[in-house]
Amino acid sequence: MLDHYPHLIHLGDASQFIERFASIIDRIKLFEDFEYQEVRRLALRMPCYRALPGTVLIREGDDGDFALLVLNGRVNVIKRDATGHHKHIGDAAPGDTLGEMSMIDGRPRIASCIVEEEAEFAVLDRDELTRIIAEDQRLGIKVLVELVQHLSRKLRVASTKLAELLAV
Amino acid sequence: MLDHYPHLIHLGDASQFIERFASIIDRIKLFEDFEYQEVRRLALRMPCYRALPGTVLIREGDDGDFALLVLNGRVNVIKRDATGHHKHIGDAAPGDTLGEMSMIDGRPRIASCIVEEEAEFAVLDRDELTRIIAEDQRLGIKVLVELVQHLSRKLRVASTKLAELLAV
Repeated sequence: MLDHYPHLIHLGDASQFIERFASIIDRIKLFEDFEYQEVRRLALRMPCYRALPGTVLIREGDDGDFALLVLNGRVNVIKRDATGHHKHIGDAAPGDTLGEMSMIDGRPRIASCIVEEEAEFAVLDRDELTRIIAEDQRLGIKVLVELVQHLSRKLRVASTKLAELLAV
Repeated sequence: MLDHYPHLIHLGDASQFIERFASIIDRIKLFEDFEYQEVRRLALRMPCYRALPGTVLIREGDDGDFALLVLNGRVNVIKRDATGHHKHIGDAAPGDTLGEMSMIDGRPRIASCIVEEEAEFAVLDRDELTRIIAEDQRLGIKVLVELVQHLSRKLRVASTKLAELLAV
């Protein structure tokens, strides 16, 4: 997964960040809340890394099968314009997720993610998500609900901006 | 749910549209495919309606707790611009879904959906989704995976357009 990124420092699983992790996991309106033990079971399945400023975590156009949950630091989101120049189009702070779409659909990354301030993050990849769903249905449902809510929130932000631009 | 929409013709549940319904439900890469019996169990929980051209299915700014799956016909997506004029920002054809974000987060509709060509559609509301998850975990997981994939696909389209506009 991220093993071919030589600049990353592997920090073990996310259970050492359990408090931060629990504070980031949303209250789930659709179903019942995550219990602490479920947050812990999820954390055990998500390896964590630290990366220095300038590290490319996700590269536009690459295939990718993992999503990141930013725990500390700041990550820039960059996209090439039509002339090949890189433009800053957003950034991610603790609690933000990056890369879910390629984790889900396996299609290429639409933007690059580059560490701005030394960052720590937890990783969830497609195989691990599939295993969670198969091995621990109750946790699987909560992770899926969490993912649905994350995607919906991002889609609302993107759609609102886009609709405003299109409605001008 | 939609009972206060006097212009809708209630058609019963989606089991009468089972073949169309099954053809719309995606092949699921993340997990295993929907089996026919699961499509049928889901269809039984989704009431269907027919609506004539001009019917407002979703109104911008309203609260809403349901999503639509278009089975037949065509639905316009309209948003008010800053001056209050309605602008066409998209449309939905058979297989497209509308209104998932408010179903998930309970926040107001960001656009209106108005029938362009006589439309038939199946409805999933938040309470029914919560019941599916509680009563039929296996089906609940598949519906959630389906929802994750739908949202991810829409987010990819919206983010790509937005990123292109922002990167100009």
